[in-house]
Amino acid sequence: MGDDNTFRILVATDNHLGYLEKDPIRGNDSFITFEEILQHAKNLEVDFILLGGDMFHDNKPTRQTLYRTMELLRTYCFGNRPVNIEILSDQSINFATKFGTVNYEDPNFNIEIPIFSIHGNHDDPAGDGGLASLDLLAVTNLVNYFGKNDNIDDVTVYPILMRKGDTKVSIYGMGNIRDERLYRTFQQKKVKLMRPIEARDEWFNIFVIHQNRVAHSPKNYIHEVMLDNFLNFVVWGHEHECMITPQISSVGKYYIMQPGSSVATALSEGESKKKHVGLLEIRGDKFRLTPIPLKTTRPFIMEEIILSTEDVDPNDTEAVTELLASKVEEMIEKANSETENTLGMKPLIRLKVEYTGFTALNPQRFGQRFVGRVGNPNEILLYYKKRSAPKPKDKTDR
Amino acid sequence: MGDDNTFRILVATDNHLGYLEKDPIRGNDSFITFEEILQHAKNLEVDFILLGGDMFHDNKPTRQTLYRTMELLRTYCFGNRPVNIEILSDQSINFATKFGTVNYEDPNFNIEIPIFSIHGNHDDPAGDGGLASLDLLAVTNLVNYFGKNDNIDDVTVYPILMRKGDTKVSIYGMGNIRDERLYRTFQQKKVKLMRPIEARDEWFNIFVIHQNRVAHSPKNYIHEVMLDNFLNFVVWGHEHECMITPQISSVGKYYIMQPGSSVATALSEGESKKKHVGLLEIRGDKFRLTPIPLKTTRPFIMEEIILSTEDVDPNDTEAVTELLASKVEEMIEKANSETENTLGMKPLIRLKVEYTGFTALNPQRFGQRFVGRVGNPNEILLYYKKRSAPKPKDKTDR
Ligand SMILES: [Mn+2]
Ligand SMILES: [Mn+2]
Ligand SMILES: [Mn+2]
Ligand SMILES: [Mn+2]
Repeated sequence: MGDDNTFRILVATDNHLGYLEKDPIRGNDSFITFEEILQHAKNLEVDFILLGGDMFHDNKPTRQTLYRTMELLRTYCFGNRPVNIEILSDQSINFATKFGTVNYEDPNFNIEIPIFSIHGNHDDPAGDGGLASLDLLAVTNLVNYFGKNDNIDDVTVYPILMRKGDTKVSIYGMGNIRDERLYRTFQQKKVKLMRPIEARDEWFNIFVIHQNRVAHSPKNYIHEVMLDNFLNFVVWGHEHECMITPQISSVGKYYIMQPGSSVATALSEGESKKKHVGLLEIRGDKFRLTPIPLKTTRPFIMEEIILSTEDVDPNDTEAVTELLASKVEEMIEKANSETENTLGMKPLIRLKVEYTGFTALNPQRFGQRFVGRVGNPNEILLYYKKRSAPKPKDKTDR
Repeated sequence: MGDDNTFRILVATDNHLGYLEKDPIRGNDSFITFEEILQHAKNLEVDFILLGGDMFHDNKPTRQTLYRTMELLRTYCFGNRPVNIEILSDQSINFATKFGTVNYEDPNFNIEIPIFSIHGNHDDPAGDGGLASLDLLAVTNLVNYFGKNDNIDDVTVYPILMRKGDTKVSIYGMGNIRDERLYRTFQQKKVKLMRPIEARDEWFNIFVIHQNRVAHSPKNYIHEVMLDNFLNFVVWGHEHECMITPQISSVGKYYIMQPGSSVATALSEGESKKKHVGLLEIRGDKFRLTPIPLKTTRPFIMEEIILSTEDVDPNDTEAVTELLASKVEEMIEKANSETENTLGMKPLIRLKVEYTGFTALNPQRFGQRFVGRVGNPNEILLYYKKRSAPKPKDKTDR
């Protein structure tokens, strides 16, 4: 597939491996979809996989999560198909291990699908030695971990310079840094993206970043205006809503692609959107992005009901319960019919209930009747009042 | 080295990687000596390394300990020298991963020195999925983990059957099981070592075990009489005292070799003995064991003083202090001159003080004056009274 001059890159992010791993219903979700992503990479015969951080949900993944991850990587990333990407930069600067090479160039390992990943806020380096879980995947040669920052007050990013035929791609990686801190570092012009002297304008420049894109407070996000204008393409991790189609930046010439998480870690609006990963093809200074819908993500239907607009007596608890229950039944029906639920997964159902003038039901008790039919029986209902806040804030955990 | 019919096996045990890793003086000891062992294996061009358990000190090793271990294994175990051992048994039964082969037969990995290891009590399988740290080394193909028991009340051991030229070796592995429990299983004749039907008597049979050998109470150890008589050689892990020369069993025809730990995890008599690993060579039904003294272990001098037999006034604290201090000086001198302390390591000094009729000094305060000169300044003195117990019990942690 592809030709000798076209990069084929599978782009994904926020796999959150190990998310809810003890949950009897949803415990395997993160692994199932990560495996689907690896299968796509294999089937599409991509040159490599590019991940945008939060590969692991917990900074200290359980032994079982580490094991399952390593097992999947060993299953899918090894093989005899040659890797046709040549790396031109100093690999010992790009990658974190003492072995100092990209994994597929180590003659002792037979890698077919290299993975390149930065860290996110969930799996950042911590503790003695400043090691991230990704370092364990790097030292065992399963992943090429890049974008590790030694000094977050003065960040110099040396790109991975790659060539395939006559196409040249540079990848700048910046693992997550606390947003307020990075904001300041940007303001002080202490974020430097190093550019090759040679053929400076012939590179297709990709920036992989894992930060807030949406402002939660004035200085805890990264604004597009802060990014260098020589960039061509930004892979934005951390934001879990899938916005797979690259959007041209409002301020620069580059495109931004936000793959979103491969597993919903919050029952929020953004997470209920259809999830995709992307096949990014680059030839010279042109790119094409083909969205790949994920088939194994758990169906997730989110709707809203405003009780005061319904024809129901606020004092008739039973009638209110039945109203909400029939709404939930509809949503389950919708989840099971409209989505391709190939694995027969119990859907996530989230109903926001505006209940001004009404009494809230006990959500756990309400959920009882849907046990065995939905993936989140205890969290179906989310009560809110329009008066107190214009929009209900979901708990998000990106 | 060696010939086409002679197995060459480096045997070691109880590496306790990560032991005291936060200690500013001794923090690297376990890794330094483990690296020395790997170097011996490389220099001696052994066919493989056989480990007897407790590779890790903590059941949940820190990320740094896991990382350093993986880094060492990747550095030493890979390479182009061919492995000339053929495995005849069903590898999917012998080894724990779904990949179902010994590491050097996986075509995607270029292994030069395979390691075979059972688990000990320090690094046994635990938690969800019953995974041990060794499983992480197995799934990344760094170690061949064997001797994992699914049912400790009914233990069936399928040996790894190996052939090199016309020599046949079978290795029975039994990872640590709580002693009392295993004692009972043995008593109930529920420990079965499976023997090949074919050429049943042509095998050199090795048993690798990690249990108490010394009785601490009537049923919390394994007695030699309990072991099968068809065995030729037992590698006994867990006991940290180095008894590298194989001893013929008091009850059977087999030999027992107790390599001892490669790092002292207790300031006890047994741990103060010179430490070795062993080169085990097997040809037909004959074996030869060559002890390999370890050069990097921290010098450890242990002596005893009985204050009542010394010419010192029990009420003259200063004189007692000086007496003990001069004794410690002698021991330091001895440690630095008698042992080959190639790395210039600060020695471990342990002085047992029988103090009947005397007052004990504060050991921490006493140790102050030796800070910078010994490896264990706070634990030099161990007070005991002959009356209360015939021999002082060291705290051991095997
Ligand atoms: Mn994140
Ligand atoms: Mn995330
Ligand atoms: Mn032990
Ligand atoms: Mn031990």
